[in-house]
Amino acid sequence: MTVRAAIQTRTVEYQQGDTTCEGFVAYDDAIQGKRPGVLVVHQWMGLTDYEKHRAEMLAQLGYVAFCADIYGKGVRPQNTQEAGALAGKYRNGDRQLLRARVNAGLDALRQQPLVDPKRIAAIGYCFGGTTVIELARSGADVNGVVSFHGSLDSPTPADGKNIKGKVLALAGADDPFQKPDDLAAFEKEMRDAKVDWQINFYGGAVHAFTQPMAGNDNSKGAAYNEKADRRSWEEMKRFFAEIFK
Amino acid sequence: MTVRAAIQTRTVEYQQGDTTCEGFVAYDDAIQGKRPGVLVVHQWMGLTDYEKHRAEMLAQLGYVAFCADIYGKGVRPQNTQEAGALAGKYRNGDRQLLRARVNAGLDALRQQPLVDPKRIAAIGYCFGGTTVIELARSGADVNGVVSFHGSLDSPTPADGKNIKGKVLALAGADDPFQKPDDLAAFEKEMRDAKVDWQINFYGGAVHAFTQPMAGNDNSKGAAYNEKADRRSWEEMKRFFAEIFK
Repeated sequence: MTVRAAIQTRTVEYQQGDTTCEGFVAYDDAIQGKRPGVLVVHQWMGLTDYEKHRAEMLAQLGYVAFCADIYGKGVRPQNTQEAGALAGKYRNGDRQLLRARVNAGLDALRQQPLVDPKRIAAIGYCFGGTTVIELARSGADVNGVVSFHGSLDSPTPADGKNIKGKVLALAGADDPFQKPDDLAAFEKEMRDAKVDWQINFYGGAVHAFTQPMAGNDNSKGAAYNEKADRRSWEEMKRFFAEIFK
Repeated sequence: MTVRAAIQTRTVEYQQGDTTCEGFVAYDDAIQGKRPGVLVVHQWMGLTDYEKHRAEMLAQLGYVAFCADIYGKGVRPQNTQEAGALAGKYRNGDRQLLRARVNAGLDALRQQPLVDPKRIAAIGYCFGGTTVIELARSGADVNGVVSFHGSLDSPTPADGKNIKGKVLALAGADDPFQKPDDLAAFEKEMRDAKVDWQINFYGGAVHAFTQPMAGNDNSKGAAYNEKADRRSWEEMKRFFAEIFK
């Protein structure tokens, strides 16, 4: 019997404290029963069609995918200056608020009726890649997190001990935003906390290698790289097969 | 229809100059037609049952696998002292001889009647992981090479420009034999030559992480790591799917 995949999507509002967030869920209703849930955390421009498309790709793989909205409903940077300021507010300013926001998204994912709450992962891009590791550092009960070209630094490396799931970091070998000192500190954090972690470096790839909107000029430090995009997505699939079995 | 896998194996003698080498081939004769060929290069103890078992695993995946014999017929270290001396003779002493030996193995693989000579890869463990990258540096016409915990240093980094295939290095994040300077030099070699390369680091894994005979005491610097073994094998399979398509 051949079943026709039928990807369902919709916007989902949820709360973090007094803040209303506007997430997005995608799943395949041709599949029966509960299935693993994957949280998708956006890059610095906020939740865009890019993450929604990734959620649909995850739904096609058989997962319930839920895009978090870290910034809150209606808060969408109009340009990279605004994006930098807003992402910086969380990443450099208030990581506790960042953790609260991403955990609110995780709760919203768990509440989706088709989600098996024992099988949960989170993935994120750039700012979202940092955020999903911060989610793990918050002690969230997830099977694993995948950071796509996220900064890996932490102002509180001792929080590595809170990490319950596995950590997969996917990085551009030529990413100028990935500072050697941050990398070394991340590795130390993972080692000291005995986390199950790994990191893959893709040669020829700079920052944002999964993002077609980044263009293809490596000299800018951020650019799409089709090979690294494909390889990192395949690695994520392998990781999910491992953590969800 | 279900076909029963029937893995055929045999010893194959071949020559490199005046030296007779004793390799080993494995393939599944339940599969029809030509298929990709994979050269397997042994660790410092020489060609052992370990590599033969890997060749059988590769045959089960549908490849023709051929274990090279770098040291020559009958030359098998009896202990790690002898292994260190012998591997060092090639790795530190005469890389040109190492290249000649591994290329002779590659030729022997290509001559196997079931091998599609346009689809060839090489994998290697420890000493063999160094050797397959040396094979690529020799300009060998291979689609790709996979180094499992091999040293990545090169006395002739300009030879990176000869590399025709893709390079995948799989490394223990805690491997004390993988020197930071060697890693940095390898990355520079790959970048300068614009090689299609990537490197994966497995957290908690030291040298020899694919080798059960290494024991499981990380403090010795070399130890088996079941997770890293499994993940690296899966990554190799993904890589083959990419380079052989």
